[in-house]
Amino acid sequence: MADLHPQLIDVAFLLGTWTGSGRGEYPTIEPFEFTEVVTFDHVGKPFLAYTQRTRSIATNMPMHAESGYWRFPVPGLVEVVLSHPTGITEIEQGTFTTDLSGVIVIELVSKVISMTTTAKTVTALERSIRIDGDVLDYQVSMAAVGLPLQHHLAARLVRN
Amino acid sequence: MADLHPQLIDVAFLLGTWTGSGRGEYPTIEPFEFTEVVTFDHVGKPFLAYTQRTRSIATNMPMHAESGYWRFPVPGLVEVVLSHPTGITEIEQGTFTTDLSGVIVIELVSKVISMTTTAKTVTALERSIRIDGDVLDYQVSMAAVGLPLQHHLAARLVRN
Repeated sequence: MADLHPQLIDVAFLLGTWTGSGRGEYPTIEPFEFTEVVTFDHVGKPFLAYTQRTRSIATNMPMHAESGYWRFPVPGLVEVVLSHPTGITEIEQGTFTTDLSGVIVIELVSKVISMTTTAKTVTALERSIRIDGDVLDYQVSMAAVGLPLQHHLAARLVRN
Repeated sequence: MADLHPQLIDVAFLLGTWTGSGRGEYPTIEPFEFTEVVTFDHVGKPFLAYTQRTRSIATNMPMHAESGYWRFPVPGLVEVVLSHPTGITEIEQGTFTTDLSGVIVIELVSKVISMTTTAKTVTALERSIRIDGDVLDYQVSMAAVGLPLQHHLAARLVRN
């Protein structure tokens, strides 16, 4: 295994495989529950490789997936590049902070969202992530198909 | 293993792990040679999950990587969503055709390229891929850092 790049030392708390479950909702769809696996990996370069997959709890069939890279060019800043099999690419940027009790909070807002010709329209995404040791809670808000930004996903993951 | 989604039957020729080597050049950098691993995978849904990694032949250190999804919404059409750890997301679209001898040609042109705040500027990418059985040859052209679209990468991969 390669040594961790110096730019990643402050964010080593993300590394590993996180699993858990969550719940999704949006006005245009039925609410749904899912299991989730997230991985953060590194190769010695100044970024984390990221993958995410969910499965329906009701049917155990694959639901969402996304993959991309997390960059930390300046201490406290985060740049995320992602693609989604729904035909969407996304750049999110934001900050991470650590409070006095060691809880890490990452707040990300979409900078650019682009779509293939046949993809549904997504216009904004926001992620709020809270990491307390080996427990990661996140919430995602989304503006899509003409609707304003609103709560879409919440999940709790635990590092394996 | 999930059954292949009907939209993927025509593109099953991509599935698997491809390895090989190639050469890159651009006016702003020294030419370089690399080994490469590409994977195309599926989960039963109408897209292929894609990853790519290269390593320097000179140093064996990781070089480029990219990950994303390939979609085939209509026979003969391809939509690709990708992200790069250099802080770039990319949508490429194009066609695939099969000639009388069974050689498959995929031609992709970037539709949208977006960058994080600290990424270098890439304005256009084009990929030309030729698959003859278990041999895949590709060429990538790139317009970046103010320079016009021009040859950047060529590689030959073989399916494992």
